[in-house]
Amino acid sequence: MSDDNTRWGRRRLLTGGGLAAGAALTGAGLLAGRQEQPPAAASVSEAAVGEATAAFHGPHQAGVATPPQAHAVFLALDLRRGTDRQGLARMMRLLCDDAARLTQGRAALADTEPELAGRPARLTVTFGFGPDLFAKLDLGGSPVRQLPKFGIDRLQTRWCGGDVLVQICSDDPVTVTHSQRMLVKDARAFTTVRWLQRGFRRAAGADPAAMTQRNLLGQVDGTIQPADDVHDRALWVSDGPGWLHGGTTVVVRRIRAELETWDAVDRGGKELTIGRRLDTGAPLTGGGEHDPADYAAVDGLGLPVISQFAHIRRAHVADPARRILRRPYNYDDGLTADGTPDTGLVFAAYQADIARQYLPVQQALAESDLLNEWTTPIGSAVFAIPPGCRPGGYVGQQLLDRT
Amino acid sequence: MSDDNTRWGRRRLLTGGGLAAGAALTGAGLLAGRQEQPPAAASVSEAAVGEATAAFHGPHQAGVATPPQAHAVFLALDLRRGTDRQGLARMMRLLCDDAARLTQGRAALADTEPELAGRPARLTVTFGFGPDLFAKLDLGGSPVRQLPKFGIDRLQTRWCGGDVLVQICSDDPVTVTHSQRMLVKDARAFTTVRWLQRGFRRAAGADPAAMTQRNLLGQVDGTIQPADDVHDRALWVSDGPGWLHGGTTVVVRRIRAELETWDAVDRGGKELTIGRRLDTGAPLTGGGEHDPADYAAVDGLGLPVISQFAHIRRAHVADPARRILRRPYNYDDGLTADGTPDTGLVFAAYQADIARQYLPVQQALAESDLLNEWTTPIGSAVFAIPPGCRPGGYVGQQLLDRT
Repeated sequence: MSDDNTRWGRRRLLTGGGLAAGAALTGAGLLAGRQEQPPAAASVSEAAVGEATAAFHGPHQAGVATPPQAHAVFLALDLRRGTDRQGLARMMRLLCDDAARLTQGRAALADTEPELAGRPARLTVTFGFGPDLFAKLDLGGSPVRQLPKFGIDRLQTRWCGGDVLVQICSDDPVTVTHSQRMLVKDARAFTTVRWLQRGFRRAAGADPAAMTQRNLLGQVDGTIQPADDVHDRALWVSDGPGWLHGGTTVVVRRIRAELETWDAVDRGGKELTIGRRLDTGAPLTGGGEHDPADYAAVDGLGLPVISQFAHIRRAHVADPARRILRRPYNYDDGLTADGTPDTGLVFAAYQADIARQYLPVQQALAESDLLNEWTTPIGSAVFAIPPGCRPGGYVGQQLLDRT
Repeated sequence: MSDDNTRWGRRRLLTGGGLAAGAALTGAGLLAGRQEQPPAAASVSEAAVGEATAAFHGPHQAGVATPPQAHAVFLALDLRRGTDRQGLARMMRLLCDDAARLTQGRAALADTEPELAGRPARLTVTFGFGPDLFAKLDLGGSPVRQLPKFGIDRLQTRWCGGDVLVQICSDDPVTVTHSQRMLVKDARAFTTVRWLQRGFRRAAGADPAAMTQRNLLGQVDGTIQPADDVHDRALWVSDGPGWLHGGTTVVVRRIRAELETWDAVDRGGKELTIGRRLDTGAPLTGGGEHDPADYAAVDGLGLPVISQFAHIRRAHVADPARRILRRPYNYDDGLTADGTPDTGLVFAAYQADIARQYLPVQQALAESDLLNEWTTPIGSAVFAIPPGCRPGGYVGQQLLDRT
């Protein structure tokens, strides 16, 4: 199974041609884990940045397999007391109508600033349902549950949980803010805002030859993704409750970067910690960014070239069908008076099955990843991402319309 | 007098050609107040977004006449107790060395994440000195003073004042964050962070045909700027203290948009308030965005077509040499639980003389601008922007090296 978003990302990417290719290249690392060479930078009209669109309707929701846009908002909503299943269904119908229009560059029905809607810049709006929602509305068992607490966690309530996720991504930051405003106005009768996390990556076109983004620690981040031939199986749900078939799940972790102490580490120490070279992103065992790491390689003293505790070894998943799809954004929420930055990652990971795919990696990392010294999880939330909808339908309809 | 930045903006803009043209078009309204027609969208390689550079050295500082980049940070620093004139001079030398490198896509001298420096995306770093600095360091009279309090102000201390301004602008948000980090690390021995404001405009290339940005109220904002033939006179200081010749001044106002009530106004009411059409940005007296408003025009009832209290009439400056250069950014700092957005403008205005150019406009607006109903100034700061420096020199050297 493959939908427009996936095809759009993979095929255009591989050919390197077409109007949308330049935009697609920006975040292309996501879907290109097995490619050996990045494609040459495409030459496109800059107008493509603003006018490019991603389909809203389809078997899967957009914003998951879509190559990451430059800007994102993750918005968690809680049901208001009194919002029942029918109320949530009405809200989802409203929000999906808004999203269907806004993603295609058209104003929302009750758009108060319609002129801001004309530059979608690959806008996607993605909806998810959190675990508590299922109990609150008597929807049956939740297919997702909050992660267990890890020893490395320093979670703050203000970045955790949520009944409904609204994920808004676009290559244009004005479009993100406008879309957020329109969606929140239609959601507020039914929900309150629990948290909002805004993130960014490189601007569209700023680094078209790079397959993978660098995070604010300076490291190439997100090289290994589910392999192409098992991509759909790793990503989309095909068993369990029928209403989630074609959907997925997301884990949203807010991970603070301890830049003050990280910056005190020398390059050798940083590379040892990650297991990759800082400049090229290549594994310390050689080759290029997309060459596989040789975890058996030892140095002249018989010690592993990639430490037992290196981040990439701890995060390594041998079975490509069990890999998670990483779609991280940077955040930068200012400075303290002494200049300490409040920065890090809004780490979003998508997978068919959190227990089978995400948790084993997270547990391995929590136990002994060297990088834990310089990263602190401060937020955590999980959501089931229902499949996409058709025109006239809405996301979650199979769940909420059940008798 | 004209420098590289100004030429870069104006000439490339008017020809519409060259590598940097596409990028320059993004914010081109700034320097194009007298053009009748926007130039056709240029077709450039997207790689230009990341690789484009603006000169750091020159007779004027970059980041003023430079067509606005998509992302900005305005950072206000206060001298630490014990930082004397020599200390500030050392800091400025350090920061200018950082800026000279980073703006050209090179790592700062002590760059801890050098790989993040490779995509300047028209990075500019601009420095200013606030009024209190002159008294603290016995530098003589300050050429700028804090604005008087206006009746419309609801100023919050946390967005006001500051000894030193560091303004960082780039089309890439990762580059802004990395540059901020490098500059703050070199500044922290001498200063503390007073406030930081992050803003954005349309992404590079998202709306290349538009001359002017729209703010989050949906209005075209920044159409009238100093006319080309008096641009330099309106912008750059040519009298008063010699160390400021070739410099300018900036007013940074944080203006909250009251979107909840603004969105309740119908389009007719919004257009009346502004004096322009929302769709085209044209004055209500007709023509296109860049046609002059006819302030004498009356309707069939003998009433002015553009209200006596309309924003553009109150802001109108007949003498083009007295106009201010507006370079506003949007901010979006999240939502309250009930979905009320914390959004607005980081309004930055540059002019040779605040008392002669900025204050009369601000006073006229404060008295009776209809738009005051939906905008609230919550922050205010002023800075003298010294002229640019040469390689090996630093910004402010003429002031700080005086015996």
